[in-house]
Amino acid sequence: MEKVRIGIIGLGRIGKIHAENLRYRDDAVLVAASDPFLTAETREWAARIGVRRLEKDSGAVVGAPDIDAVLICSPTDTHVPLIEQAAAYGKHIFCEKPVSLDVRETARALEKVRQAGVKLQIGFNRRFDRNFRRIREHVLNGTIGAPHLVKITSRDPAPPTETYIASSGGLFIDMTIHDFDLARYLTGSEVTEVYAQGAVLVDPVFAKYGDVDTAVVTLKFASGAIGVIDNSRRAVYGYDQRVEVFGSGGSAAAANEFPNAVEVGTDAGISRDKPLHFFLERYRDAYRDELDRFVASVLRDEPIAVDGSDGYQAELIALAARLSLRTGRPVRTAEALELAERVNADAGA
Amino acid sequence: MEKVRIGIIGLGRIGKIHAENLRYRDDAVLVAASDPFLTAETREWAARIGVRRLEKDSGAVVGAPDIDAVLICSPTDTHVPLIEQAAAYGKHIFCEKPVSLDVRETARALEKVRQAGVKLQIGFNRRFDRNFRRIREHVLNGTIGAPHLVKITSRDPAPPTETYIASSGGLFIDMTIHDFDLARYLTGSEVTEVYAQGAVLVDPVFAKYGDVDTAVVTLKFASGAIGVIDNSRRAVYGYDQRVEVFGSGGSAAAANEFPNAVEVGTDAGISRDKPLHFFLERYRDAYRDELDRFVASVLRDEPIAVDGSDGYQAELIALAARLSLRTGRPVRTAEALELAERVNADAGA
Amino acid sequence: MEKVRIGIIGLGRIGKIHAENLRYRDDAVLVAASDPFLTAETREWAARIGVRRLEKDSGAVVGAPDIDAVLICSPTDTHVPLIEQAAAYGKHIFCEKPVSLDVRETARALEKVRQAGVKLQIGFNRRFDRNFRRIREHVLNGTIGAPHLVKITSRDPAPPTETYIASSGGLFIDMTIHDFDLARYLTGSEVTEVYAQGAVLVDPVFAKYGDVDTAVVTLKFASGAIGVIDNSRRAVYGYDQRVEVFGSGGSAAAANEFPNAVEVGTDAGISRDKPLHFFLERYRDAYRDELDRFVASVLRDEPIAVDGSDGYQAELIALAARLSLRTGRPVRTAEALELAERVNADAGA
Amino acid sequence: MEKVRIGIIGLGRIGKIHAENLRYRDDAVLVAASDPFLTAETREWAARIGVRRLEKDSGAVVGAPDIDAVLICSPTDTHVPLIEQAAAYGKHIFCEKPVSLDVRETARALEKVRQAGVKLQIGFNRRFDRNFRRIREHVLNGTIGAPHLVKITSRDPAPPTETYIASSGGLFIDMTIHDFDLARYLTGSEVTEVYAQGAVLVDPVFAKYGDVDTAVVTLKFASGAIGVIDNSRRAVYGYDQRVEVFGSGGSAAAANEFPNAVEVGTDAGISRDKPLHFFLERYRDAYRDELDRFVASVLRDEPIAVDGSDGYQAELIALAARLSLRTGRPVRTAEALELAERVNADAGA
Repeated sequence: MEKVRIGIIGLGRIGKIHAENLRYRDDAVLVAASDPFLTAETREWAARIGVRRLEKDSGAVVGAPDIDAVLICSPTDTHVPLIEQAAAYGKHIFCEKPVSLDVRETARALEKVRQAGVKLQIGFNRRFDRNFRRIREHVLNGTIGAPHLVKITSRDPAPPTETYIASSGGLFIDMTIHDFDLARYLTGSEVTEVYAQGAVLVDPVFAKYGDVDTAVVTLKFASGAIGVIDNSRRAVYGYDQRVEVFGSGGSAAAANEFPNAVEVGTDAGISRDKPLHFFLERYRDAYRDELDRFVASVLRDEPIAVDGSDGYQAELIALAARLSLRTGRPVRTAEALELAERVNADAGA
Repeated sequence: MEKVRIGIIGLGRIGKIHAENLRYRDDAVLVAASDPFLTAETREWAARIGVRRLEKDSGAVVGAPDIDAVLICSPTDTHVPLIEQAAAYGKHIFCEKPVSLDVRETARALEKVRQAGVKLQIGFNRRFDRNFRRIREHVLNGTIGAPHLVKITSRDPAPPTETYIASSGGLFIDMTIHDFDLARYLTGSEVTEVYAQGAVLVDPVFAKYGDVDTAVVTLKFASGAIGVIDNSRRAVYGYDQRVEVFGSGGSAAAANEFPNAVEVGTDAGISRDKPLHFFLERYRDAYRDELDRFVASVLRDEPIAVDGSDGYQAELIALAARLSLRTGRPVRTAEALELAERVNADAGA
Repeated sequence: MEKVRIGIIGLGRIGKIHAENLRYRDDAVLVAASDPFLTAETREWAARIGVRRLEKDSGAVVGAPDIDAVLICSPTDTHVPLIEQAAAYGKHIFCEKPVSLDVRETARALEKVRQAGVKLQIGFNRRFDRNFRRIREHVLNGTIGAPHLVKITSRDPAPPTETYIASSGGLFIDMTIHDFDLARYLTGSEVTEVYAQGAVLVDPVFAKYGDVDTAVVTLKFASGAIGVIDNSRRAVYGYDQRVEVFGSGGSAAAANEFPNAVEVGTDAGISRDKPLHFFLERYRDAYRDELDRFVASVLRDEPIAVDGSDGYQAELIALAARLSLRTGRPVRTAEALELAERVNADAGA
Repeated sequence: MEKVRIGIIGLGRIGKIHAENLRYRDDAVLVAASDPFLTAETREWAARIGVRRLEKDSGAVVGAPDIDAVLICSPTDTHVPLIEQAAAYGKHIFCEKPVSLDVRETARALEKVRQAGVKLQIGFNRRFDRNFRRIREHVLNGTIGAPHLVKITSRDPAPPTETYIASSGGLFIDMTIHDFDLARYLTGSEVTEVYAQGAVLVDPVFAKYGDVDTAVVTLKFASGAIGVIDNSRRAVYGYDQRVEVFGSGGSAAAANEFPNAVEVGTDAGISRDKPLHFFLERYRDAYRDELDRFVASVLRDEPIAVDGSDGYQAELIALAARLSLRTGRPVRTAEALELAERVNADAGA
């Protein structure tokens, strides 16, 4: 294989980013893309960036004989069937997070992937952020010793639409899942227990769907370290993405990224512009770099950067967080699946 | 009264700071001080800064007719008897934190103070830090809207001695108590529930005394806000004292304070000196400013800046944190006293 | 014209950057490129990024009928003949700085461009840096009032090779010329007088060629503002590119850009990585954005962002700086040409 | 001598600061102070801080037999006669900057001091600023190698009154003189040549007195290093006091100091309060520390921190700067005295 022939399923914002990043690669080519809603705008975009085939039906991409790998960027509820279908066709798979809203379904899909022997990379793009990667390096090279505390601040500039909220699966599986993955990545240790505090402080619409918009989640790691994540659906000063790992030998902390390094002094004080607007701006390079690794794993059999179990573990932590919020007590990840059944049974009774 | 005539009980580091700060006041005078261990060094110090009377026995200060107010800076286990004695003599009282290791004893002492009609200020000096005070102003003037999240990082540069650990009452009542008070001060809201995670990661000696050296504590406020505190007994890069309040209208965050604003660039990177070494350096001005308020309350009957109930509430939160760590579940402050008795009974059984 | 058909002359670092940036454009296409030294590496690179025609002779590009515009990225001594040749062929021109080492030759070339009616943009890429552009916006929108002072720090991480030094024309026309242009851009005012201090402090090799490696240049602007530039050929902590405009209403200052926003605290202090390595990293986006404007001026007749007179003025300031250093006194730009002749005549006598 | 018995001449802002700093010393005592304008406010202040004797006539202080040393804080035109008088009485002298507006008079006064064998310290308080002192340490311990460039930004928050301007002696001797001294202190090298650019951009009142309000001064050092100072009489965002020394091994730069370390993020951007208001706030500790050294030199014969020749050199540089501005060319410090006479003769002719 000289170039990986790629198909994209779903042409929302993320699907389009991947398509545009593929244009600049010498080792991969975008052969086809599908989206059930092929608007005029999408067609015009596809023509401009040179997408060869444009389909309404995902099957026409997943099953195409001239495609080696698919990037699944469609809504979450389609991920598992698409993964299973792609695996059945022997295609390598890049799937956006989360794999599913039900961690048992995720497990099932991973088993199919395993049986088919195809590669699967999960779209935890933040692992590729230049800042978080640098912190991971500091952990690995011992600069800060053994991690004792991991702190992640992750706040969006504005809440999503009500439609999005309704089908998001809730804050933990939709938004915090990135932070759960980052916590595992940075420490190199598994999360064993989760305690979640949540509240509806931003917009009452979240309550309507049994969701929260503000949360603090405490994590216990197998290594003995403690983690804490704080989330908000609305930071009026902009996308707030900070991380700190504190250890026996010191601390490594990533500040926010800004559109420029200009500081202004006036009679009113000292000021600067808000941070980079949102994930598309902040993680622009990270989206490009995660594709590097996916293409390398397909083309040269290099190790998968973020594999299926990473997806599974993050979902399991998200489940434990949801159960903790519901039960008002810490929940061990090892008990989460069983507890979920009990809680659901109780709710159903 | 033209000048408040003051006596100091206990001439450790904090007692000496207060004595030195009193030298520069026009409205207060240090009349006498006591310490059971009057070393040559302490005598020399007292002569140099002009302490008029130096006593071994605290009673000679508390009961002196030419003294209006006492600063209690002796070990914690002497606070309650001293407060009760001072109240009986009609002396106004400034007492270092915590009032006691047993919140019920604190309540008893407060009742004596109330009956005696004397003033009592608690030594939560961090409320007077220029940074935390500025954040409080931003909360009060609405700059950042209604508080949603409060984050406090409080890490010491190095652990205390084993002797100190043995009698400290544990991390929460000894160290985190400052953060509990700060959380109440910054939000202006009471803490209703506490969940504490703790670990021994710095030094096994803490385990010997049933204590932890690393902790993350989640707070639930009556206002609906959520708080989180992280502590470590050893941050090798120095005293780490940062605070952030995030709200509906924005965020106000205090960075660390440094001995200078010099940044050095060399072949090895960009660097600066460590933060101000420890509490004596970082809170130098705060110690001075809390005395301002105490003297003003005695001299001009101004409101007490940090009163007995502030001491009580912080201790109650510390108790809840300790119980949470012990029981592995969140503990409501309202249930803490009763739960403590049950837990102690179980332990005794 | 749907797409501008472009030829590149010179495939050094800058020529290659432009070629790579052209790949991602929908409105321009790289048709041919020339370089007298077509190494195997360059051929391999050209094949990889899809350069259609590769020539040894620049004439085969400049004169090609299927080319609308040329990017002149070859050594400075070839700029004027290439500009004149391209103008004669009716090609639009993008030329790297400086146009020439002799400002009178530059004037001659600009006259040819004027007569031919083609577009000419000069490669002052720093005008497109996100930081300096933001400062210019603050000047234009009045945030900082009328400019009083302009300060530019421009220091390279390491000196160039001796070969480069020998033919560079000296610090002012080679390196400071960017700062001269930036000073004019930021203030929107012409420089009327120049005083230059220079020294050989980094490497004696500069003295061998009558050059300096360290300099401070003071500028007087027609507006009454004062400017100051400091340069060094070697900042061991990395590429140092900072700018400040101070005015009646405040100040806008751009700090350096870094490869990440991670700060590390250890026992040795607080540190971070060095700034972005050199111009290729720091001005990566600026190189892309200057092409935007060039293509737009050719394709849609939009105004030229940095025109020939900008190149001329910067060279005139550089000449005045050189003469100031030589004569040890401030030199007016208006007298620079005449003074240069006198100085050269004296030197020849 | 157990305590240095001190008299203060002049009870303006600076005189009062020194008086207040003396209260906290164990090794010095303020015996008397004089001021021709003893307002009720000053009398009240003196009573409050315990000044024993208050005089209208400076002679009653300078000649008092119970005084060992005088702090001269009166207007500049009284410095030389007071120094000469104090020297005649055998008193040690601390004198605010500048010694005089005429460097020849300064030389005469220094000679009297030398003959009398008394100590003389000049009030260049910025040498004691924690930041600039730290930079000096980095220079001394070799962290940044041999200094190549020294950059000083010194901008006041608001211009002085017209009365003050009228008798100030001009920007260079009144304001920049601090920076001239700092430049010598930081590099440990003498200034050999000065080039000054100045303008009236802040307020036309400066032109009325032949003064400027905005300036850039370039310095040539004996060591080969180059210095540059920029001044403004009005920085609307507050007192701007930054210093950078760049050398063969790196750079050390001091940022401004702030009243707090709080950063606020709102919908409008990220902001913080203005820097510390003015010299009384910014150099509060420096005023205290310079007295440390003066008292130590008197009491224990320790070396004088800032001696008469430091005062002389800074005035000579200021003179050269004034002459440079007047003649429009660089002026060597070695020629300044002679040039001043020629220029004055021309003006008189």
